[in-house]
Amino acid sequence: MTNRMSIQNKEKILQSFFQLLNTSSFENITVVELTNTAGISRKTFYRCFKSKDQLLNNYLEEIMYKWIKHVNNNYPSSNDELIDLLFEFWLKYSYELKILINANLASRILDEFNEIFPKYFIELHNNTKNSNLTKKDRQSLQYLAYLRLGGIWNIFANWLTQPNKIDFNILLYLVKQEYNL
Amino acid sequence: MTNRMSIQNKEKILQSFFQLLNTSSFENITVVELTNTAGISRKTFYRCFKSKDQLLNNYLEEIMYKWIKHVNNNYPSSNDELIDLLFEFWLKYSYELKILINANLASRILDEFNEIFPKYFIELHNNTKNSNLTKKDRQSLQYLAYLRLGGIWNIFANWLTQPNKIDFNILLYLVKQEYNL
Repeated sequence: MTNRMSIQNKEKILQSFFQLLNTSSFENITVVELTNTAGISRKTFYRCFKSKDQLLNNYLEEIMYKWIKHVNNNYPSSNDELIDLLFEFWLKYSYELKILINANLASRILDEFNEIFPKYFIELHNNTKNSNLTKKDRQSLQYLAYLRLGGIWNIFANWLTQPNKIDFNILLYLVKQEYNL
Repeated sequence: MTNRMSIQNKEKILQSFFQLLNTSSFENITVVELTNTAGISRKTFYRCFKSKDQLLNNYLEEIMYKWIKHVNNNYPSSNDELIDLLFEFWLKYSYELKILINANLASRILDEFNEIFPKYFIELHNNTKNSNLTKKDRQSLQYLAYLRLGGIWNIFANWLTQPNKIDFNILLYLVKQEYNL
């Protein structure tokens, strides 16, 4: 199988995965359903992914890779801009994120952002204040990042699953006001 | 089966559930494993719970019922006290919560609190400000509650899975400082 074919097959499998997850639980999706929906053979599936779990892990890794590129291409200069980038990014992937949230997989996404977000948050805080942080400062900032990230993820996830209940701009205003941004 | 026996069996099953979930994923736990670990028959299991999913739902319902009792018995008079009660409650159930978080079920717990917490948050805000809230105010406060709740749940969950990384009192201090409490 050429590399290009392999990428196309991976894409087909991922599309089928989200299509199935939209109406079924992660637990109940089988590899047979995935291959039937994607119109590929079992052999092809296992060439792309070891298992259904690996498929999800692979998707999460890819989306985090895209998030890193998104931040690095946009050079945020403050935590205000960093939060804007986060919302922008989540909105861009709202189709997949909504399905994952409704399938009780929201914490899998948050876990991934918990791994990466605090690093940027600490760096930008450091730039803004132009100070040298002690180990203790860094530790506090890391947990402050968990506090903010968890908050904005939860408000976003609640908006995304019922977008008609509140205007997205009011939501943004609430976040900025809360953090004095 | 008497009511007392039924409660005892439910307890045994729940204990076995957390014991198994500590080393296995929710998906991989079977009813056979649950009955073997609890030392009960399949028939007894199905008298208590329809399925493994219903067992988890039942546990979540029970813990939320306990949370409501915890709040109502302690009469919080401000959102500061409400957050104290929340941490107190989560610490009390930290054994089960840690296992659920490690088993990627953190969002199930947060979803339950999302259903109930905003109501208290809005009421206390209303008491403190002694004002009549418009429908729009209530809506904004509800989403502000999601923002705060998601934040403190995320900082708590990160502390709980690695409690040696930061002192719990520093964590409390960070939360209170962030929300000017």
